[in-house]
Amino acid sequence: MQVSTKPVKGTRDFDPIDAALREHVKDVILQSYRSFGFNQIETPVMENIDILQNAEGGENLSMLFKVLKRGEKLKLDGPIAHENDLVDYGLRFDLTLPLARFYANNHAHLPRPFKTIQMGYVWRAERSQKGRYRQFFQCDIDYLGTAAPSVEIELITASASTLTKLGFNDFTVRVNDRRILEALATHCGVADKDVAGVLVTLDKLDKIGVDGIVKELQKKQLSEQSIEKLTSFLNAYINGEVELGTIRSHISGIEEQVISELTQIINTADSLAKNQYQVAFDLSLVRGMGYYTGPIFEVASKEFGSSLAGGGRYDNMIGKFLKSTSVPACGFSIGFERILSILQDRNFKGDSVRTRSAILYDPRSTELPELFAKAASLRSAEHDVSLEIRQKNLKQQLEALKKVGVTQFCNFTEDASSLEFKALE
Amino acid sequence: MQVSTKPVKGTRDFDPIDAALREHVKDVILQSYRSFGFNQIETPVMENIDILQNAEGGENLSMLFKVLKRGEKLKLDGPIAHENDLVDYGLRFDLTLPLARFYANNHAHLPRPFKTIQMGYVWRAERSQKGRYRQFFQCDIDYLGTAAPSVEIELITASASTLTKLGFNDFTVRVNDRRILEALATHCGVADKDVAGVLVTLDKLDKIGVDGIVKELQKKQLSEQSIEKLTSFLNAYINGEVELGTIRSHISGIEEQVISELTQIINTADSLAKNQYQVAFDLSLVRGMGYYTGPIFEVASKEFGSSLAGGGRYDNMIGKFLKSTSVPACGFSIGFERILSILQDRNFKGDSVRTRSAILYDPRSTELPELFAKAASLRSAEHDVSLEIRQKNLKQQLEALKKVGVTQFCNFTEDASSLEFKALE
Repeated sequence: MQVSTKPVKGTRDFDPIDAALREHVKDVILQSYRSFGFNQIETPVMENIDILQNAEGGENLSMLFKVLKRGEKLKLDGPIAHENDLVDYGLRFDLTLPLARFYANNHAHLPRPFKTIQMGYVWRAERSQKGRYRQFFQCDIDYLGTAAPSVEIELITASASTLTKLGFNDFTVRVNDRRILEALATHCGVADKDVAGVLVTLDKLDKIGVDGIVKELQKKQLSEQSIEKLTSFLNAYINGEVELGTIRSHISGIEEQVISELTQIINTADSLAKNQYQVAFDLSLVRGMGYYTGPIFEVASKEFGSSLAGGGRYDNMIGKFLKSTSVPACGFSIGFERILSILQDRNFKGDSVRTRSAILYDPRSTELPELFAKAASLRSAEHDVSLEIRQKNLKQQLEALKKVGVTQFCNFTEDASSLEFKALE
Repeated sequence: MQVSTKPVKGTRDFDPIDAALREHVKDVILQSYRSFGFNQIETPVMENIDILQNAEGGENLSMLFKVLKRGEKLKLDGPIAHENDLVDYGLRFDLTLPLARFYANNHAHLPRPFKTIQMGYVWRAERSQKGRYRQFFQCDIDYLGTAAPSVEIELITASASTLTKLGFNDFTVRVNDRRILEALATHCGVADKDVAGVLVTLDKLDKIGVDGIVKELQKKQLSEQSIEKLTSFLNAYINGEVELGTIRSHISGIEEQVISELTQIINTADSLAKNQYQVAFDLSLVRGMGYYTGPIFEVASKEFGSSLAGGGRYDNMIGKFLKSTSVPACGFSIGFERILSILQDRNFKGDSVRTRSAILYDPRSTELPELFAKAASLRSAEHDVSLEIRQKNLKQQLEALKKVGVTQFCNFTEDASSLEFKALE
């Protein structure tokens, strides 16, 4: 066969070491979110192409993997007006859209509010680059059906506390609110059509500073007056003259409730952090997706540059599938692949108490029934016992077994009643 | 939006109750297989279309979900010679083909023999019918790189013992060997081209008896002489005159080693079963796939009709990706969706020791920080604590929470230091 044995471009195979770490991290995340009372749901990886195309998916829509129609539905005789005539399904590009569809279909018999966990793969035909994959795993929690600030407090606490269980500390949960950002833009006289572009620039405050922002906004041909107003505000913010409690005296058009709720969210979540991590207001946090409607958050760490998790409130999306009903919604997503890569760099092993033993044997031994029975009696939740056919090169065999996590071995000869294990070092 | 909110045809959404059961069963299977020293690997859900099309996939090839090419690679201007010009990837239809590709790509740094677990979804565009899904979950173990009978013993023992951990008992692992079936066909003078068809009929012995088999073979226009020879053999088999130990005196052309190894497999595996289940020779076991080369097995149960698991030796497939090298291989696959459906019918809950508590609260309470801190202190591996915003209809809310597995609740009013939980009945 002259076909490549490499995985599809932008996707990866996971060997036993990788797969075990991924499984462990999934398990920690799932158990942690469950302990907060979130409930797992699962949806199929394919969605109807109409659902995907009608979504507010932004650039994700240009990265869809589309599935060819089958049988008589696929018509190839005449001219093809558009590629969409050829497809009926697509691979999901996130877990939020399937959640919206699921909720519309099932809300009648779900608890309200509905606290949900989703863990699964999503697909985007991204241009290949380091750290960007075309199949990647997402871990989302979402809280549907209520708009109380305790929702945000719980999402932040659950996600941050999950990260601490994976060995992360000293990170900050940055919190902002889309309504503040929009009021700021209006306050500076930015036209509606330019708001998104201005916010993309503002997002870079940490990296390029106020000077960098001014240059970028000039390139984007924002008016001098708007740039001046924004600069003056940002300088005041950087000098610590603008705090959340006083922001309304700097920017007009922010409702008092927005600030009081955001303050409650940040203060309560920070007090629950017990100094393991920080929760803080950060005006320069923007978050790319246009569908956010209220508080937004992101977990940042100086050590790692890019963010570990992020989310926010999106009150207008879920309801679209339900016609009349509006459904308040807020979510937090952990960057699973980013976290995996950091844990691999750290040589993270988890806190497994499992003993993994290998018993090397000759398959021609007449004592096999006794050996197999003995191995069965040793197996338990904490003790894996692998029977391994002895190879000629014992040293090489033990080395390979060690690599897949075997911690001790026994070289079986005759007496199954008294197996002696040696540590595999 | 005027789009359907139903999942894609032939696929399913899983609500919290379904998803929790699926997760539990996956976990039991994974831990059980791990305890036998098998190692999990993972491959992407998409494979290159060439890999899928060149496979010995039989009718699965006609049920492929194919993925449309993207960008410049997709050419729709001219006439389209074949739909395969439009696609570059496809969704995997089983886990064995990806395993073969993975092994070819990674065997140099894997233990040999390689004992592997694969758990994941596969896709087939089957005609919809009850119990047949287009996206379904598979749990496979495979043992690559050696042909000793202890491989079969271990696969049978690991799979059967896993089923007992899910509450199955009183089942039989039926064992046969493709080489016996082929020798039987040759012995009866069946032409090579007719062997597959005869075996498909033989597979129904349990259901239609010898008379039914004769009728079906007559329809298939098998020669009278062949039918007569087969009938006479089957009658002897049913009357208990043909046992594995004496089968060579009835059918010529079976090597002695085939019988001695099959006997060793069945006797040892049955002794390890300790009467929790049976392992027995069954001449009428055929297994559909053409790629089997030696022992084959299937877990049957009178209670459930269809099989719970199956597998066999397939020594010629893995090596195809490795050009010169031949790689002995044997596998066992648990019918995850079949088992799930039985466990659901049985109202199976697993042996979870986890307590799931809900604390109902008013989001306007001034005691939120204390309540959240108290909840955090209660959470552990065994105790999930869900904070739930109190709804107007308390009875309805408790009913919905009970449905997602909450076992006790507390109606929080003021004092977080002394929460009292009541059982949710």
